[in-house]
Amino acid sequence: MKTLSTQSPDFSAQLDALLAFETAQDPATDRAVADICQDVQTRGDAAVLEYTARFDGLDAPDMAALTLHAGDLAAAFARLPDHVRSALETAAARIRRYHEKQKLQSWQYLDEDGTLLGQQITALDRVGIYVPGGKAAYPSSVLMNALPAQVAGVGEIIMVVPTPKGERNDIVLAAAHLAGVKRVFTIGGAQAVAALAYGTQTVPQVDKITGPGNAYVAAAKRRVFGTVGIDMVAGPSEILVIADGSVPADWVAMDLFSQAEHDEIAQAILIAPSQRYLNDVQNAIARLIEDMPRRDIIRAALNNRGAMILVRDLDEACAVANRIAPEHLELCVNNPEQWAAKIRHAGAIFMGGHTSESLGDYCAGPNHVLPTSRSARFSSPLGTYDFQKRSSLIRVSPEGAQKLGQTASVLAHGEGLTAHARAAEMRMVQHVII
Amino acid sequence: MKTLSTQSPDFSAQLDALLAFETAQDPATDRAVADICQDVQTRGDAAVLEYTARFDGLDAPDMAALTLHAGDLAAAFARLPDHVRSALETAAARIRRYHEKQKLQSWQYLDEDGTLLGQQITALDRVGIYVPGGKAAYPSSVLMNALPAQVAGVGEIIMVVPTPKGERNDIVLAAAHLAGVKRVFTIGGAQAVAALAYGTQTVPQVDKITGPGNAYVAAAKRRVFGTVGIDMVAGPSEILVIADGSVPADWVAMDLFSQAEHDEIAQAILIAPSQRYLNDVQNAIARLIEDMPRRDIIRAALNNRGAMILVRDLDEACAVANRIAPEHLELCVNNPEQWAAKIRHAGAIFMGGHTSESLGDYCAGPNHVLPTSRSARFSSPLGTYDFQKRSSLIRVSPEGAQKLGQTASVLAHGEGLTAHARAAEMRMVQHVII
Repeated sequence: MKTLSTQSPDFSAQLDALLAFETAQDPATDRAVADICQDVQTRGDAAVLEYTARFDGLDAPDMAALTLHAGDLAAAFARLPDHVRSALETAAARIRRYHEKQKLQSWQYLDEDGTLLGQQITALDRVGIYVPGGKAAYPSSVLMNALPAQVAGVGEIIMVVPTPKGERNDIVLAAAHLAGVKRVFTIGGAQAVAALAYGTQTVPQVDKITGPGNAYVAAAKRRVFGTVGIDMVAGPSEILVIADGSVPADWVAMDLFSQAEHDEIAQAILIAPSQRYLNDVQNAIARLIEDMPRRDIIRAALNNRGAMILVRDLDEACAVANRIAPEHLELCVNNPEQWAAKIRHAGAIFMGGHTSESLGDYCAGPNHVLPTSRSARFSSPLGTYDFQKRSSLIRVSPEGAQKLGQTASVLAHGEGLTAHARAAEMRMVQHVII
Repeated sequence: MKTLSTQSPDFSAQLDALLAFETAQDPATDRAVADICQDVQTRGDAAVLEYTARFDGLDAPDMAALTLHAGDLAAAFARLPDHVRSALETAAARIRRYHEKQKLQSWQYLDEDGTLLGQQITALDRVGIYVPGGKAAYPSSVLMNALPAQVAGVGEIIMVVPTPKGERNDIVLAAAHLAGVKRVFTIGGAQAVAALAYGTQTVPQVDKITGPGNAYVAAAKRRVFGTVGIDMVAGPSEILVIADGSVPADWVAMDLFSQAEHDEIAQAILIAPSQRYLNDVQNAIARLIEDMPRRDIIRAALNNRGAMILVRDLDEACAVANRIAPEHLELCVNNPEQWAAKIRHAGAIFMGGHTSESLGDYCAGPNHVLPTSRSARFSSPLGTYDFQKRSSLIRVSPEGAQKLGQTASVLAHGEGLTAHARAAEMRMVQHVII
């Protein structure tokens, strides 16, 4: 792992280089995705079936063969070993409880003239959850995407998950059952995103698509954005640990691994005010890595994009963290609340030695879909609020129309919009009472 | 204006055709914008100065000549005629009051094991507001974009506004003064968006860019999305009026005009259960349009994309409105609250005859930046919440780590992520107490 020090004169440039990540979209991928989306929009099911045969090696006679209903999901749930079913249930209950607290509520008030102002909250009618398939099957991702939609009161949750060569994952389907998914299409890639965005003869059009996917899925989501809502387009996962030396070095090393094991471009950074502690963690890494089944990926990630940063003190550590705006921030320190209050930009803040990031990934309650690539500067974790929306409410009283009309008239004339002004002025004729 | 009836067998197809709007991005615009963004990212101020000379006919020796400071904005405010200054102040006060109600608040709770869960709210550090310049100068847009940022507590609000040939608009600058803008760069187009997104020697990098603009600005915002946050990319403005006949036809006609006068592709639709009322409004349109300075634009918009829709009753009117998901919805009916409760998708709902849309555009309080092109199905008005963000908070207690660790371990092993499991398991060794 690289070692940086804030005392180095070129620390700032070194940090920029460490965080740099090329998010540029590949033009060839973009063109391929544009063609697939266009084709699905034009030919519907027929196009989806063809791409599924070609990309997933799954030759289905019709969309019915690629559709799972509530009964299929319940059956998958029932087939699970007890300890897995119970773990899923525990996680779902905790995630649901946390996300209940995020629900937006409608509100309104009257001003002095009796004019009503407010905000009406509604849930989305129908959403699509994209779940990656094949080797990397993540039931936790099903819970984290579908449960907030369910808590929000979304009318219908549709899931798509590719099943290359027909291989289905029971835990994924069981998670869908728990999270209120009513229908699953075993399709994936850009064709699945396009089917959800435009609708086909079989796949109903949704209002928003969330969930992670590969480069084709990401490009397709960018393309259909506007026709439907999307969640963020995620970059590689990141963890930043700030440690004061009070948490065992082995624990911190394992937390860095748990980020690095995702893939070779994941980023794991440790910040501490003590070179000795950094060395301790480095030694723990060297000792523990050999037991890790995914050690090659971990090693590549730590070498590629990992770093240890020596700082003067914890205040400086927080300042560096705010510049990095990490997806996951662990405060492995005493009095973590005191330091959390200084953090302005982070997707999730894990406080104290017992709060491993992996507890948050699965079951603490908060969402594990978090802003990556410094986007915690301006965005938030996926939440219930992402499946609700607001409509402004205005009811101007006859008295209010007299006063507001004057203001609107002046400003509308200032902008050269005469009809705007006249519409306001017409309501100022006192003798017309509605 | 076209006339549709829900009783017509092809109503659904006719409605789709009416709402269809080609949002496809123009490849030539996209390429030009890509080059400009790249150039600004590489050469900074020098590139911005060149494009400003070329596109705005404004030859500035350096960026200082394109910079306005707080004092310049205050001076513009002081120069305004009294009635304009007062109208701006009234509007700003009402908008600010409404947006105060939208502020997100941090929260937290403890579970049974003493584990703390919560959400920490922070404001964005720095945002950029894009304001169109030239002929269409909209001070109201300055208020609607900058005031929510100010209410949210954004650290610094930067504004960009092109001043073709050096022509500045005092009302726009005065609105910036009122809304807490600290610095203005008189630049526009894709080069201004790129300068805000990447930063230059003079223009500081922002975290989010909001505000309307032309096709180049929209393409640039799409391109820099991810590096910074953006608000929506707006389509043409729309109004849908539902009328039961209780509001004077002249008022409704003028409200349709006030949308149509924006531009030739704006959309104005009237729904009523009475053909006679539709005829009355049609007659009012014919009579009133001749007095409108922008009658050519209004006529073009009403012919292109306007419509009258005859429905069976108000329930059906609400169902059609939900399908349209309009940016602005006027309920020109008795008991508007009763019908508003049936509306699931609309940017803003204007209730009762005295609530002209134009009052909402300028000064009622709610934001006039609203979801267009059916995106009210999944998105919300611009608000204070768009300038705040959430960080999840988790502090797992030693007791909580024992229970959560088991669940996380099972699920992590199920996903083949051993380091995730080990990180959780390490915290279950009871004798290590932090």
